[in-house]
Amino acid sequence: MEFPSKLIEDAVNEVSKLPGIGKKTALRLVLHLLKRDEEQTQSLAESLVAMRSKVKHCRKCHNLSDNDLCSICASHKRDRSLICVVEDTRDVLAIENTAQYKGMYHVLGGIISPVEGVGPSDLHIESLVDRLRDPDGDAIKEVILALSPTMEGDTTAFYLQKKLKTFPVKISTIARGVPIGGDLEYADEVTLGRSILSRISYE
Amino acid sequence: MEFPSKLIEDAVNEVSKLPGIGKKTALRLVLHLLKRDEEQTQSLAESLVAMRSKVKHCRKCHNLSDNDLCSICASHKRDRSLICVVEDTRDVLAIENTAQYKGMYHVLGGIISPVEGVGPSDLHIESLVDRLRDPDGDAIKEVILALSPTMEGDTTAFYLQKKLKTFPVKISTIARGVPIGGDLEYADEVTLGRSILSRISYE
Repeated sequence: MEFPSKLIEDAVNEVSKLPGIGKKTALRLVLHLLKRDEEQTQSLAESLVAMRSKVKHCRKCHNLSDNDLCSICASHKRDRSLICVVEDTRDVLAIENTAQYKGMYHVLGGIISPVEGVGPSDLHIESLVDRLRDPDGDAIKEVILALSPTMEGDTTAFYLQKKLKTFPVKISTIARGVPIGGDLEYADEVTLGRSILSRISYE
Repeated sequence: MEFPSKLIEDAVNEVSKLPGIGKKTALRLVLHLLKRDEEQTQSLAESLVAMRSKVKHCRKCHNLSDNDLCSICASHKRDRSLICVVEDTRDVLAIENTAQYKGMYHVLGGIISPVEGVGPSDLHIESLVDRLRDPDGDAIKEVILALSPTMEGDTTAFYLQKKLKTFPVKISTIARGVPIGGDLEYADEVTLGRSILSRISYE
């Protein structure tokens, strides 16, 4: 594509570096900004730069935060006896959206993946161990591993289990089974097989 | 969605103002930027602001341009006897990509649409008339109307025809018919009907 302007070409190139955005979509977005007020582009640019330069990671759970301590770690309404271990911030958001969990979090910042060269030392695992070793007033009873049901997630969960089993806390994982609302006949065989093995008895 | 940080929330809100980008996609893009170098966000923001504040419209054809005169209007290799009238810059890019046209352009900046309150005076029609009245050395022979084959496009084409017919130039429109590579049985009946009426005889 030959652009009528170097400025537009530069902007399109920058926008198309974002994941899932190709040149055509980038051009559509850039031309959209040209039709709108200059202030809209200005505030978009400012909010991105401010976000990138000022967002911190919570020193306790490594979740993204505006302050040293994130709003969940700073809250007095959360159950401090539970720690839910997740891969990244999006998982925290997803679990928070269920409104079913009122405990604390620990964000690993990734998942063990030999293929991508991510080992245990690249993740926030030591600080999780530290939280259990020195609970700082929190009487931690349970660590819930909420990792993706993939090979990498299972590897990470296995590693964490071994690492944490010396502490007197319960270690659990989120249930795996057929998704609610899904049709049994369309469930894949691995999931369906697992859901039979981990069947829940009516009490 | 409850964001862990006001800065992220602001950035997500700004990004999701772009067309076709919802909150979830915006969050994905913002978290992507957080994982990359700060320079990437900086150069994205700078290129958008530079583009928005510095891009001009060519004073002759109203195409987007870095300079007063766009590269097409400034070029000596183009055929100055042809003016192709289009709705916006994207149409110029689309026609340029065909590599079939070597004339000049005139960008209307929109299309007559009573529903959206766009009348002839909102478009660059007077300056097109001026180009015909005072061709500034260009011996204009033909004006090609390359407008969308929609109600609005046809209305605009009809208006332009009436407006331009006093000038001694040929006025034409791009051919309408079955798209090349398309299957006849899937062509819609209006297009197929028109393609029979405007049939082309083998010479």
